Amino acid sequence: MMPAFDPEDACQRAIEAGGGGLVVHRAHPLNCETSIPALLGGVVMPNAHFYVRNHFELPALDPATWQLSVTGLVERSLNLSLRDLMNMPSETLFVTLECAGNGRTKLDPPVEGEKWDFGAVSTAEWAGVPLVEVLDRADIRPAAREVVFRGADAGTLPGRNDTLSFERSLTLDDAMDSDALLAYAMNGEALPIQHGYPLRLVVPGWYAVASVKWLTEIEAIEGPFTGQFQTGSYFYEGKRDGEVTREAVTLQRVRSLITEPRPDEEIELGDVAIRGVAWSGAAPIERVDVRVGDRDWQDARLIGRRHRHSWQWWELITRVEEHGATTIRARATDLAGRKQPNEQQWNRLGYGNNLVHEVSVHVR
Amino acid sequence: MMPAFDPEDACQRAIEAGGGGLVVHRAHPLNCETSIPALLGGVVMPNAHFYVRNHFELPALDPATWQLSVTGLVERSLNLSLRDLMNMPSETLFVTLECAGNGRTKLDPPVEGEKWDFGAVSTAEWAGVPLVEVLDRADIRPAAREVVFRGADAGTLPGRNDTLSFERSLTLDDAMDSDALLAYAMNGEALPIQHGYPLRLVVPGWYAVASVKWLTEIEAIEGPFTGQFQTGSYFYEGKRDGEVTREAVTLQRVRSLITEPRPDEEIELGDVAIRGVAWSGAAPIERVDVRVGDRDWQDARLIGRRHRHSWQWWELITRVEEHGATTIRARATDLAGRKQPNEQQWNRLGYGNNLVHEVSVHVR
Repeated sequence: MMPAFDPEDACQRAIEAGGGGLVVHRAHPLNCETSIPALLGGVVMPNAHFYVRNHFELPALDPATWQLSVTGLVERSLNLSLRDLMNMPSETLFVTLECAGNGRTKLDPPVEGEKWDFGAVSTAEWAGVPLVEVLDRADIRPAAREVVFRGADAGTLPGRNDTLSFERSLTLDDAMDSDALLAYAMNGEALPIQHGYPLRLVVPGWYAVASVKWLTEIEAIEGPFTGQFQTGSYFYEGKRDGEVTREAVTLQRVRSLITEPRPDEEIELGDVAIRGVAWSGAAPIERVDVRVGDRDWQDARLIGRRHRHSWQWWELITRVEEHGATTIRARATDLAGRKQPNEQQWNRLGYGNNLVHEVSVHVR
Repeated sequence: MMPAFDPEDACQRAIEAGGGGLVVHRAHPLNCETSIPALLGGVVMPNAHFYVRNHFELPALDPATWQLSVTGLVERSLNLSLRDLMNMPSETLFVTLECAGNGRTKLDPPVEGEKWDFGAVSTAEWAGVPLVEVLDRADIRPAAREVVFRGADAGTLPGRNDTLSFERSLTLDDAMDSDALLAYAMNGEALPIQHGYPLRLVVPGWYAVASVKWLTEIEAIEGPFTGQFQTGSYFYEGKRDGEVTREAVTLQRVRSLITEPRPDEEIELGDVAIRGVAWSGAAPIERVDVRVGDRDWQDARLIGRRHRHSWQWWELITRVEEHGATTIRARATDLAGRKQPNEQQWNRLGYGNNLVHEVSVHVR
């Protein structure tokens, strides 16, 4: 089932398979964003084009010996093989995953961190075991308040000598109520290695840092958990009354992206189709408004049914009647009333910058 | 946008990309079935694994000069470029396509035709222009009763000297009411060459012979159309009162397939997950019943929302308590009350054989 594993080779193959659909930021650890304009119509992003965000090198896991352990404050500790998981009830969900740093390069003044443009987001159909099935089987004790998810990826961070595993927690309520999936399949295939083979936690609606790859351990704890990727990063840092404040990165902020026309595209005078995707972690998309140059905002058409956990395709077909350079803007609003801001959401670590998306085009 | 075209090379690339997910029947013209047990959880079949059924060699189309013409009994003849089509309103649909000959190898006595096991079926998310948009724009005249769809693929058939194009018609009512799409994208990417690049008609619910690839012409006619692939094949031939009868192949018959366990798999005693897909052209799936050996039929769980035009994932988790060889059977029923038959549906050309699916396994 698993090809002979060589992390270097696995990276190279992932990059090559992506073809024109992946923009490689770093090969070690592998970090690539999706070419959003390469997406054509719809929900599914092919696996080879799905963005990749890793903090450490790809771990080498042998699926024959790999196990998921469930430990800590539970009545029954579990050791589950991949076969055990596949013999449990399954679910399939279309889920959009987005890196909290998506849009970071648009911040001014610039901030540190991976230099994501807008392509650190993609959608797939995930299949696996609902997390609640496994937690129910382990029978979490009343004292537990959080659940820690530990990946097999580990390493050191710049300026530090200790070896860290990638680990994140959810509160028990979030773990039970978020429709989270222990996913072993992605768009009808086994997870590609760079996406967490053999098992990835997928937490719908949350920034993807919560969706731990190469999952090996689930531990119920009293908490609060204070791992590096929980409280040492992935927070919005602000100031209030002269005090530095920190708020954890959780749900994806509402955002729309324009996929057509492409940036700097030359378009013809007359009917033009403007299309894109929109999503929000808090609620389904209610509407997307589109503005061409300084004309009025127009209401785009949402295509297909409303999606619960995945982005929504939208389009506006409009007439463009003036030659020259112009800017197209898209602004999404979700059913919880959240709307993309017109201004950047600057914060020191550069998370959640969901300002209105702009694409500049030239009308011939 | 289009790679330099060499039909031989294109076939080879399609086969290689399929990896273990495609079973090649013939390379010229290219015919491959999907490895159904390779599908893991859900609706989407990756493009590289999507079955391929062609009657002629892949045609070489240049997307820069390619046009779709709309002619015949219309008020306005149209010539539409790919750009014109992409500037029209779009729709996305998850649609299952199935070859009418799927399951043909199970017929006894054997019949002529492509030797499909059960893998001449796959599902994708298609994006494109609703057919009604284009027909409305052409303004069909009242005299028209049928619409002919002509592909760029052409060639000769065994025992005949004339060159035929691949062409099929729909009645005007079916063309308007079937949710048919002029699709330019498949699972978020441009159509692969072997799936009809740059444009394919996709007719939900119908056997895929209706979903003409490499579409170049739509012609409104009075009809009835009598092309080779309309009335010279693709009919159920039977006998009634000593007379030979012919009934056209139209909607996909209700069918379920077992994807897990795989044929001849060795399974362990105890809990076993039995999973698969089910679909019907006439109506969504109502239920799937599963039988292990000679135990009672059990009601499988349908996973996810009811699907209108695509297959539905289902599963049954059950205990297997006897060692040795056993047979697992699956039988789907649709909301129109159609049910898979226990016996083969023999007909001379071998279409629509939707008998109950069986998989033999060995319990250790």
